[in-house]
Amino acid sequence: MSGNSIGKLFTLTTFGESHGPALGCIIDGCPPGIELCEADLQVELDRRKPGTSRHTTQRREADEVRILSGVFEGKTTGTAIGLLIENTDQRSKDYGNIKDTFRPAHADYTYSQKYGIRDYRGGGRSSARETAMRVAAGAVAKKVLAQFGVQVRGYLSQLGPIRVNMERFDWAAVNTNPFFSPDLEIVAELEDYMDALRKEGNSVGARINVVASGVPVGLGEPIFDRLDAELAHGLMSINAVKGVEIGDGFDVIEQKGTEHRDEMTPEGFLSNHAGGILGGISTGQDIVAGIALKPTSSLRLPGKSINAQGEAIEVVTKGRHDPCVGIRATPIAEAMMAITLLDHLLRDRAQNGDVKRTTPQLS
Amino acid sequence: MSGNSIGKLFTLTTFGESHGPALGCIIDGCPPGIELCEADLQVELDRRKPGTSRHTTQRREADEVRILSGVFEGKTTGTAIGLLIENTDQRSKDYGNIKDTFRPAHADYTYSQKYGIRDYRGGGRSSARETAMRVAAGAVAKKVLAQFGVQVRGYLSQLGPIRVNMERFDWAAVNTNPFFSPDLEIVAELEDYMDALRKEGNSVGARINVVASGVPVGLGEPIFDRLDAELAHGLMSINAVKGVEIGDGFDVIEQKGTEHRDEMTPEGFLSNHAGGILGGISTGQDIVAGIALKPTSSLRLPGKSINAQGEAIEVVTKGRHDPCVGIRATPIAEAMMAITLLDHLLRDRAQNGDVKRTTPQLS
Amino acid sequence: MSGNSIGKLFTLTTFGESHGPALGCIIDGCPPGIELCEADLQVELDRRKPGTSRHTTQRREADEVRILSGVFEGKTTGTAIGLLIENTDQRSKDYGNIKDTFRPAHADYTYSQKYGIRDYRGGGRSSARETAMRVAAGAVAKKVLAQFGVQVRGYLSQLGPIRVNMERFDWAAVNTNPFFSPDLEIVAELEDYMDALRKEGNSVGARINVVASGVPVGLGEPIFDRLDAELAHGLMSINAVKGVEIGDGFDVIEQKGTEHRDEMTPEGFLSNHAGGILGGISTGQDIVAGIALKPTSSLRLPGKSINAQGEAIEVVTKGRHDPCVGIRATPIAEAMMAITLLDHLLRDRAQNGDVKRTTPQLS
Amino acid sequence: MSGNSIGKLFTLTTFGESHGPALGCIIDGCPPGIELCEADLQVELDRRKPGTSRHTTQRREADEVRILSGVFEGKTTGTAIGLLIENTDQRSKDYGNIKDTFRPAHADYTYSQKYGIRDYRGGGRSSARETAMRVAAGAVAKKVLAQFGVQVRGYLSQLGPIRVNMERFDWAAVNTNPFFSPDLEIVAELEDYMDALRKEGNSVGARINVVASGVPVGLGEPIFDRLDAELAHGLMSINAVKGVEIGDGFDVIEQKGTEHRDEMTPEGFLSNHAGGILGGISTGQDIVAGIALKPTSSLRLPGKSINAQGEAIEVVTKGRHDPCVGIRATPIAEAMMAITLLDHLLRDRAQNGDVKRTTPQLS
Repeated sequence: MSGNSIGKLFTLTTFGESHGPALGCIIDGCPPGIELCEADLQVELDRRKPGTSRHTTQRREADEVRILSGVFEGKTTGTAIGLLIENTDQRSKDYGNIKDTFRPAHADYTYSQKYGIRDYRGGGRSSARETAMRVAAGAVAKKVLAQFGVQVRGYLSQLGPIRVNMERFDWAAVNTNPFFSPDLEIVAELEDYMDALRKEGNSVGARINVVASGVPVGLGEPIFDRLDAELAHGLMSINAVKGVEIGDGFDVIEQKGTEHRDEMTPEGFLSNHAGGILGGISTGQDIVAGIALKPTSSLRLPGKSINAQGEAIEVVTKGRHDPCVGIRATPIAEAMMAITLLDHLLRDRAQNGDVKRTTPQLS
Repeated sequence: MSGNSIGKLFTLTTFGESHGPALGCIIDGCPPGIELCEADLQVELDRRKPGTSRHTTQRREADEVRILSGVFEGKTTGTAIGLLIENTDQRSKDYGNIKDTFRPAHADYTYSQKYGIRDYRGGGRSSARETAMRVAAGAVAKKVLAQFGVQVRGYLSQLGPIRVNMERFDWAAVNTNPFFSPDLEIVAELEDYMDALRKEGNSVGARINVVASGVPVGLGEPIFDRLDAELAHGLMSINAVKGVEIGDGFDVIEQKGTEHRDEMTPEGFLSNHAGGILGGISTGQDIVAGIALKPTSSLRLPGKSINAQGEAIEVVTKGRHDPCVGIRATPIAEAMMAITLLDHLLRDRAQNGDVKRTTPQLS
Repeated sequence: MSGNSIGKLFTLTTFGESHGPALGCIIDGCPPGIELCEADLQVELDRRKPGTSRHTTQRREADEVRILSGVFEGKTTGTAIGLLIENTDQRSKDYGNIKDTFRPAHADYTYSQKYGIRDYRGGGRSSARETAMRVAAGAVAKKVLAQFGVQVRGYLSQLGPIRVNMERFDWAAVNTNPFFSPDLEIVAELEDYMDALRKEGNSVGARINVVASGVPVGLGEPIFDRLDAELAHGLMSINAVKGVEIGDGFDVIEQKGTEHRDEMTPEGFLSNHAGGILGGISTGQDIVAGIALKPTSSLRLPGKSINAQGEAIEVVTKGRHDPCVGIRATPIAEAMMAITLLDHLLRDRAQNGDVKRTTPQLS
Repeated sequence: MSGNSIGKLFTLTTFGESHGPALGCIIDGCPPGIELCEADLQVELDRRKPGTSRHTTQRREADEVRILSGVFEGKTTGTAIGLLIENTDQRSKDYGNIKDTFRPAHADYTYSQKYGIRDYRGGGRSSARETAMRVAAGAVAKKVLAQFGVQVRGYLSQLGPIRVNMERFDWAAVNTNPFFSPDLEIVAELEDYMDALRKEGNSVGARINVVASGVPVGLGEPIFDRLDAELAHGLMSINAVKGVEIGDGFDVIEQKGTEHRDEMTPEGFLSNHAGGILGGISTGQDIVAGIALKPTSSLRLPGKSINAQGEAIEVVTKGRHDPCVGIRATPIAEAMMAITLLDHLLRDRAQNGDVKRTTPQLS
């Protein structure tokens, strides 16, 4: 395969440029008989879509999705599901000035070098706008996972220097603020920080955590398709992600074995340093992952670069951009985890069937 | 595919249990005409093999590899390469006592739950012994990459609380000490730390960095098969890895855009915060990745667990184990990066041919 | 992957039901820099589309295709190409009467059994209408292949009892009659036969041959992805195909080795019994394949069947159908051969590069 | 993937040259808990192995297979199964004379052109010896299929001009004669024909049929991975196969719809022209396929060819060869059908689960 697909049994293939006529995707392998309608997808797309607060790009896209196939009389049929979102607000003229220039830290340069040609309007294929189809497909995965009792949720845990206070953690808060913060007390601080950042013309990084609960024990295909390896793949494939952690992540470097190991009792595990995965296979505990997103590369502050002729230039990015891509990344990260988990649930079912687990199921 | 393969065009498929008759692999897609002999593989296997210092497991395995196909008169023929290592030191009786118990933090529990059966001897398929075939295949990848001017090297950057001092960094030092430390001045400290740890019966985590130099611009297949996503996949698939970073990794969370972006001049990039990848495609700079390895789960210190009947037990692990799997992980991490890079080099060549890059090539 | 994709490097994924809102596809892996516009696709779609003569279904579909991504300023960019055809003439009410019945020899029964649900309108996903996207993607493959000097052409060689006289064979004739017959003298006979068949309410089988010329030596990936194996896969995946031959096909059963073998001279091969493939790899000669298409299953003549309740019923199919699917199958077969060849050309280039062949190139 | 693998969930990857040290394979995705031992494989390998009658090559290979992984205490564990057969009778000197020559109709020429290098000893990778590993893997697939009530059997239906009389058809006869003929009355005729052929120094083609019974309805993944398409792929990937038919195959060309369609009643289908597959999905009837194998290309009768320098030469093949590869092809064809069916059974289970079929199951 050539790069635009993910998942082996629940397979998502996407297309679409930031300023082309439309974005679309095909979901292949969805189990049949699942109730599905456009509203199921729209609710997730609306969480990601731009322009819902002053802290994200002001591009106006309704991101209205159409289901073109694979659903009949309100239920999935088991055949390929085609989805489409027409682009409606593509002010391409904003981008004429970057036609022959490479924005530092942006994919302009690498796409040009790789393909010898690039659709420069709004980043073309490299635009984060591409993630809309991931979210739509993730909504399908979530609906299927719900049938198996699995729920995937994410939240912002850090934005620049501002961290969530985990003692105030509240899942109910996440969808009530534009940052997906589970800690409502930091929202005002986040607002102020973002206002200052926007005024400055700069951008900043962020951290998102994603958690899956209700995951059955046994998902993950050793050796190379371990659940953690494929989660890392899916999460690292999101624009701007530079790091992925499972469970305690980089903290394990300084941990001793006695500290890290999650002891077990007949009533369940006593801790979850492993993030719900051992030997690449789910333990039945919550799956916990974290990602680091870099600051946006499109800045109003001038930076050194070169043009297509290799000459030194100074780049200032106009157009409409997110000063922190992390703000809208929570639904995207959830989508990638949901897609990966469902794919593995189907893969496990293929080899092992709908068998009952005979040993005690801990949580 | 079902989990034991990695790579789409340079494809590695492995088999083998810790205490079965042999380990083996098939490498599919290796370009023809590359000089290759068993000594090329052995030199890398010897870097990983156990028992080279007192700080690793005392199991004695020569890890002698045989090339069974795909090489004729000293050169690769383009057909599948079969490799085999016979296991010679499999004291299985050491493991009788874990037959019906699940070591905390080990894959015992998850394999049992997933498959309903497990080869408990030495961890069976979940043993780090499996990585020998990755190293052998990585040696093949390295030979091919060398033809394209690409070199992959790794090093230990942290073991428990002890960090390498990057001011003393020396590639030449890495292969002269059992820890793969690029900083010779910390080796004595590492030795003492490990001696104490072993005496204590405990284990500890570590961090490995891997760097590829000479990588052409343009490798990586957006959207989902970005170079960073597939590196994350490959590296996270290594036993005990809980985190993967590209370039500045988790540090990007607190970076501003002006700080993170790597500015470009006609002479090249001015920094490499991105770790050599933008938009999922290599920039031509060094590819830089870091991984976190958890402490080994097989400890002499007792831990709470359950047995196959679900009853509470106390587990003490005997047998021969590495108190820090990070010590031998450097060649494994190098192998995964080499395999991933070669796979992407071939994938890029498929779509884009042996074309000359027309824009200036920075480094 | 889950069934709606074909090709490993030039990958086609399709969606769409006969009477859903639209058909679409994603082409992944197309080389960049190829001139491509909607007219390039439309010319091929028009060859396949229904209603161009009285001998095919009278459903009226313009089959107007839109390119939604992957093409910028008239050239492919190397990113995923999204294509869309809206369905415009979906008189679904025609199909209400087959909702709970299974037409004999049709996929109604198997889809219902497999998925437990089916979109019965016009055959849903099992409709030959699905092949429109194959033809569109095949048009893209043909444009790329042309850059490598490869041409793919097909023709009807038999319809029911009427065979083409190969002594009157003329490529120029193929696109000048509604049957794609290379022998114009049988066209009147074909018209009469089809008129009688339609009056009778019956259907009949056909044979299509496909030929690729200008194919470089060396395409095909042993062992399992031989060029002939993947051609067989692609061609047998076309609706109604029940047999595939390469070169002399089933005639080889009675051939002796001295008769079958294609002798070679410094000027080239002396014959082409092999159909241009030896050991699964192209020889540089024409690639020659033949397929057998069964008679359509939707007949006005009553047949015995059962309904969803398992009761005996008599089925008469109304609606608009092709009495010989072979008539419109020539462009579809060409498309599948073109897609397969391009995929293999890219796969060979990945492993072997743009190398010059050093031994004499025969034809 | 690069050509040496087949199957998406039950995946076989093979390696090995005719005159290299060994042949081997990895089976990935086998369900756990299946009883399996080397004798299970050996019985199938013995059916294929050379030298069991005077009508096949006189090379002496015991084809003794070792299971190296994936089986523990007599049962599959769900992990990768490694198999190995050492080559023992590799008189390579027989082949020195073909080092720089290309046998007509043989893969010598195409391998040389593709890879620029070839292991010429006994055909190297292109040797039919490669099929031993298919038969070994097929034996595993058969054992798993048996658990689902599926049986795969094949037979020789034609050798050169001699056809089986289907009125004397007897499954019990197949394994009692060296030709796998289900009609014992033609065995003497076959013996005489082969003796004359061998004396002449010539070779001849053959036809093999394969039948699977007990196949559940619902196997096969539309659109491109239809069961018939993947059977065609698997069967055409066997050395020397030039044609594949499903059900009535090429006879459908002249059939009318009323003749071809398999009518259904509450008691089952009334005929099986479709060969057990409709719309690419199994109907629950027997799956019936036929293949045509070309005459062997290695002949003692001189033929025109060229050498590596492009000069005209005359080729006479010495060494030990099968004058009719069809004689030993029955177990190979069975293996490919078994592998394909099991792969599809697992794929169906992934998407649709172990669901009960609600509509009546016909046979």
